Order: sequence, then C-alpha cells, then structure tokens
Amino acid sequence: MTLERPNLSIDGLMAELMALAQISEAEPPVVTRVVFGEADMRARAYVKGLCTEAGLTVREDAIGNTFARWDGSDPTLAPIGTGSHIDAIPNAGLYDGCVGVLGGLEAIRVLKKLGFKPRRSIELVIFTAEEPTRFGIGCLGSRMMANVLTPEQALALRDKEGRGLEEWRAQAGFAGPLESVAVPNGRFYQFVELHIEQGPYLEQEGLDVGLVTHIAAPASQRIVIEGEGGHAGGKLMPGRKDALAAAAELILALESAAKSTGAIDTVGTVGICDVFPGAVNSVPSRVLITTDVRDIDGARRDRVLAALADTGNDVSARRGVKITTELINADPPTTCDPAILAALEESAVAAGKTYRKMVARAYHDSSFVSCIAPVAMLFIPCRGGVSHRPDEYASPKWIGRGVHVLSRTLAHLAE
Amino acid sequence: MTLERPNLSIDGLMAELMALAQISEAEPPVVTRVVFGEADMRARAYVKGLCTEAGLTVREDAIGNTFARWDGSDPTLAPIGTGSHIDAIPNAGLYDGCVGVLGGLEAIRVLKKLGFKPRRSIELVIFTAEEPTRFGIGCLGSRMMANVLTPEQALALRDKEGRGLEEWRAQAGFAGPLESVAVPNGRFYQFVELHIEQGPYLEQEGLDVGLVTHIAAPASQRIVIEGEGGHAGGKLMPGRKDALAAAAELILALESAAKSTGAIDTVGTVGICDVFPGAVNSVPSRVLITTDVRDIDGARRDRVLAALADTGNDVSARRGVKITTELINADPPTTCDPAILAALEESAVAAGKTYRKMVARAYHDSSFVSCIAPVAMLFIPCRGGVSHRPDEYASPKWIGRGVHVLSRTLAHLAE
Repeated sequence: MTLERPNLSIDGLMAELMALAQISEAEPPVVTRVVFGEADMRARAYVKGLCTEAGLTVREDAIGNTFARWDGSDPTLAPIGTGSHIDAIPNAGLYDGCVGVLGGLEAIRVLKKLGFKPRRSIELVIFTAEEPTRFGIGCLGSRMMANVLTPEQALALRDKEGRGLEEWRAQAGFAGPLESVAVPNGRFYQFVELHIEQGPYLEQEGLDVGLVTHIAAPASQRIVIEGEGGHAGGKLMPGRKDALAAAAELILALESAAKSTGAIDTVGTVGICDVFPGAVNSVPSRVLITTDVRDIDGARRDRVLAALADTGNDVSARRGVKITTELINADPPTTCDPAILAALEESAVAAGKTYRKMVARAYHDSSFVSCIAPVAMLFIPCRGGVSHRPDEYASPKWIGRGVHVLSRTLAHLAE
Repeated sequence: MTLERPNLSIDGLMAELMALAQISEAEPPVVTRVVFGEADMRARAYVKGLCTEAGLTVREDAIGNTFARWDGSDPTLAPIGTGSHIDAIPNAGLYDGCVGVLGGLEAIRVLKKLGFKPRRSIELVIFTAEEPTRFGIGCLGSRMMANVLTPEQALALRDKEGRGLEEWRAQAGFAGPLESVAVPNGRFYQFVELHIEQGPYLEQEGLDVGLVTHIAAPASQRIVIEGEGGHAGGKLMPGRKDALAAAAELILALESAAKSTGAIDTVGTVGICDVFPGAVNSVPSRVLITTDVRDIDGARRDRVLAALADTGNDVSARRGVKITTELINADPPTTCDPAILAALEESAVAAGKTYRKMVARAYHDSSFVSCIAPVAMLFIPCRGGVSHRPDEYASPKWIGRGVHVLSRTLAHLAE
C-alpha cells in the first residue's frame, strides 16, 4: 500500500472544522463549548454524525467519552486509538483539540479511501472535558478512563454554582455506573494524539510536525496567605503582616527555583494573584496565588515545589503570616512510547515532512491515556504559539501535513 | 463661663448617629452613601434639618459643601470652622466623618444650652465627597474649596460609567459656577475637625483623645506593568517577560524603601494588584498595582517614591517589561496649627480628659482646609483601629469625651 498521494480532503476537513466552530456558546468565530453545555452537546452530535457517515461504530461511556470504531480484520486485538477533545474554554479558538478529533477522523477516511484494511481496529476517541472549565479539573474523561480520578472523587466535583457531575451528566443524557468508565490496562494497544503545538517552535523553525517525546504535566497549587489588614496610613511598618508583600516573596521564589534547576524544561508560573480587600489605601489582609510548575522530570519538578515550600515556611515565620497550600493536582509527566515515536518518525520521513522531537508543555488527554496504554503525540505548528484565544490559527497546509503523517502512522501501527 | 458639666446630650447624639446610619444604599447597619447618590442626598437633608432646628443658618455652595452658621457677636470676624463629611464608601460603618459632623453640631448645641455667646461666628461644615468612591479622588469638596482642585480639573472627573461631575451635581440640585466654590485664604479664622482615629493607639493606650499635630497625606500612584503573556507550559523561563514577577519586585522594593527611611512615620503600601489574564496556566501579561506612600515629611516621602522609580527603571531594563507610572495624587502633608493645638490641650486638661499628641495617617478634609486656614484635628478612639467596615465602632463614652473637648475648644477659639 502506498500513501504517496494521501487522498486527503483538506477542503472538506477545513469545512468541518469551520462548521464545528459555528457551534459555540459565544458569537463565532469565538468558540466557547463548556462540557455538557448546549454547544458541547450539539458539537458532539455533529461529530458523531460525521463518524457514522464515515462508517464507524459509535459508542459512548457513562461520562460521555465517545469511541468511533473502525473494525480491524482481527477484532480480538486491542485497537489503536487516536483522538482528542472538542470542548473549549470560554473565548477560545477552533483548533485546540478539534484538529485531533476531526483530523483523526480524516486520517481514518483517507485510509478507507485508499482501501487500507487494518488488522487492529482503529478507534477515534472524543474525550469528555479536557478543559477544566466546568469542574475546575482538566482531562476529566481521560482521567476517569485511566481511573486516576476515581468515581468517588468525580462525584465530589462541583461547578461554581455547586451543581455536581451527576446532575450535569444526567442532563446531558449520560447514564450508567461511573465505575464503568475506567478501562483496564491494554484497552488500547497504542494511542496517538494529533494536536496543535500551543507553542511557537515549529512555526519559528519552519518545521511541519513535532514528535512529542514527553508531556510535562503541571503540578498546581492554590496558596492562601493570611496576614493582617488595616488602613494604609494608620498601620505603621513595624509589625505589619502584609499578605501581598509575603506573596511577592513567594512569586519571586518560584521564579527563581524554576530558573535554577539547570534544565530548560522546568517552568514555574504564578498566574493568579487575588488581593483582599483590594483598595489603594488598605494593607492587604489576604492574598490567593496559584502556582503552576511543569517539568518532564517529576522529581525535578517536586524539588521546585519543595524549594517554594521552604520559602513559604521562612516567609510565614519571618512575617507572621499564615500560609495554606492546597495541591490542586500533581500528575506525573509522561514519557512517550518509543515504538509509536518510531512509527511517527518513519511516517514523517516517508511523507517527506520536516520534523523534530519536542516536549509537550501543556496538559493533554494523552497524559492520562498513558496510564493504560503506550502513547505519543504529533504536533503541528500554530501561529505565534497562540492558543486558548479566538485568534488561535493553524493553516490548512499545516493541518494537512499533520493528518498525512497521522494517517500513515495509524496504518503503520494497525497493520 | 464654665463647661464643667457640659450639658452634653450623648443619648440624643447617639440617636442621631443611628438615624443617620439608617440612611444607606446598603442594608443597615452597613452604611453606603456615595456622593450625590440617593442616600447621600437624604442624609444631607436630615443633617441640614438638625442644623436648622439648632438655630443655625444653612448655606450650600455650588458643589454641595454645606455651611451651618451660628452668628457670633462680631459677624465681621472670620468664623471658627468645625465639621467633617457624611459620605461613606461602600460597606462602611457609621462613625467615620459623621462623628465630626453630628458631634460638631452637638458641641455647638452644648454651648448654646450653656448660654455661651461666641464673639466669632462658628460654622459647621459638611464637606462634599471626602471619600473617593464616585470620582476616584478623595476630599473633593475641601480640595475645591482650597482651589487645590481647579474647576477645570473638576470638570474632567468621571465616574466608572463615564458620567461627569457636572451631570451628577446638576442631578443633586447644585448649581452655580464651580469657580465660586474656592474660598480665599482666611475664610475661616481657624478650623478644627473631630474624627475617629482610624488607628489602634488611643484605645490601646487607654487615652480619651488625640491631638493631631500632623496629617500625613498620601502620594498615590497607579503603576501598570506590561510584559508578555503565554501558556504557563509553553513559555520557557529564559526570555519570559512575566508582568507579575516584575510587580513582585516593585511591591517588595516599596516595602523596603518605606522601612528604611529611619522614620516611624513613613508608610508604603501596595493595596491593589490586578493580574491579566489571571489564569492558573497563563503567564501574566499585564499587572496593575497601586502604591500609597505617606509621611509627615513631604521630602522624605518623595525620596521613597524616587527609590521606587529607580527600582522600576532597573526592573524594566532587566526584565524587558514596560512600566507606566501615573501619579494619582501627591498632596503635601499638613502641619497643624500650634494655637489650635494649645486650645485643644488646654480644653482636654480642663475637661479632665487624658490625651496625647499624634499623627493622623489618613486623609482628611482638614488636609485641604489647611491651605486656606490654620487647622488641627481632634481624634477619639475607635475599636481595634478598625474603620471603613461595618464593624467600625466608637463607644458613646468615647464620643462624648471628644465632643466635650471639642465644645470647650470651640468656645475657647471663638471667645
């Protein structure tokens, strides 16, 4: 079988991406699809329709993870998986996740058109709620599938209005025991996810695709600093317990710790700093900051967190403030599977595409799928490294090249 | 004349304070009276009614500053002024400002009941908008009275919805040229303002009153730091332009500069820190902080601002962020008048009240009245130093003692 001319319908795929983007809680081209919301449900229906049209068998689990299966010649073998997500944070663009779902579907259609007959089945997966918008936790579907998030923990999730997962999934029409969402190790033989890079490097270096060797999962914390408020004039400097000054020390300590590991792959960010009461003439009495630390080396990442905790202890003692740290998550980094990476590389070479190996620095469903199957990811460029914004962009050429490499890889793995 | 038994109606005064507190945009006991709002207008009417009942002649200027006059035996002499404000920030208490207005009125009524006949007229002043709530600038009425804020500057003021001062004062029924608000130097012979301390010291030290020798006016700045945003995972540490890390340096630099002047009277505060976009997994691209620096020595205060500006230049160059500093205000500190202080001290001693001299560390209308007349302030304790909160509290005893000393002082000054 040759895939020299991949039979790719890039116009059709782009039309589908655009049609999916029209299904939004916001005014297109702004995409907002919060999980189990009205737009998410319509988007699911649209994509399931396309899968059925393509001759795939569609099944959903109790949390809405969706599996569109192309049966292989030996249906007893564990399938090859591909896919991503279609939910979108508020004010997002149309490529994040969707390129992996609709591009994965197109890769399958290409193989079908070429008359390819897979030995292993190929399953396109649409994961529920990769984005943390509704319940504050990312990769809900893949976490539950990997049993990294237990049914008990899932039941405790609440949205901002206090509505739980049970209420939302029932409203969305998903039923059955949550226990049934977890799958055993080996459920997929291998899994490969196509995604936009969400970073600037492929575009800057003029490369077609990136082969992801590691996924640098974040450890996130919520840190509350409680000091003592007062009037900015009346409260003299000695004996002040300024929560914001204490927070400033932590912000700089995290930056310094992330910079000093000696590894380029360590990043540390304080993205939120909420000050109470938040008035020009009030000494801050309470500050909430969040930390986001990522690395491809879990131990190294944990050393950054430990250094920050040390600073916290010091600041707390020295300034007389109370510091409470809550771990939001600390998922392990993922090392991608060499066999899949080899298949990706071979496919890229065969397709005449330029590539390099790279690290994924954002969360992906593959991070959790890696708990139950070997995974790797395939990145395509996105303009300016921008994502999670309406001006997120990947050109049809970039998408086409990614789908081309993905279809070859799927064929390779499923053969 | 003797004031040994001051004829003070503390129950009546407390009832008036409570009645005034009922006039609120919020649910009592929470007091919210934003200038020219419906509650502010009703509160003005209530207080003007009390003044008229007390036999005072009420007059208002073009911005709503209200003057309730008790004519002295020589009406050609410049009057003694007393008073404060009745507007209140959202979610405030009932003593800040109101004790100076209703307590000033009670001091006048006490003198009237005692049959005192002042030589100089005594004027109770209710200043418009001491609080910065509506237009973002404090002491609007006294600033304009002192021509520290010119009519042209006043006309440029806007609220959050873009509505100007002209529109608001017209709606409130105040007319006439804004130029007429400014009064010449000597408009008051002397001015004395009764106020809660808004600090903890009188209560801690068990003293009845504080004689304010200096008012430490703030210099306030709005500092915007513009860096470069990005995904917390995708943006590597080298080359980051994290606006919040830059802000953290400024926050600590201000604290350090305020601490290192060698004077207890220097205070520096960053009370606001707004982060954009403000997401766990986003590098902050833009941060707004405010600074509030106070001192009783203007030159020393300016040295703190200069040190902060130096750090700003260094941070900007080192981190590649853009720092824009806007001075919100930098009013000069006030030195209170020795003659009024002597009268206050004599009155406190004669009334058998304990006292000490102290610095006012919050803004007051007296700061601006000082530009056109000698001023001093008389502080009473407030529980825990708390103000600008619904649980702000001064006991009837504390208030009674303050009014007692004030009435003696007014008699002394107007004799």
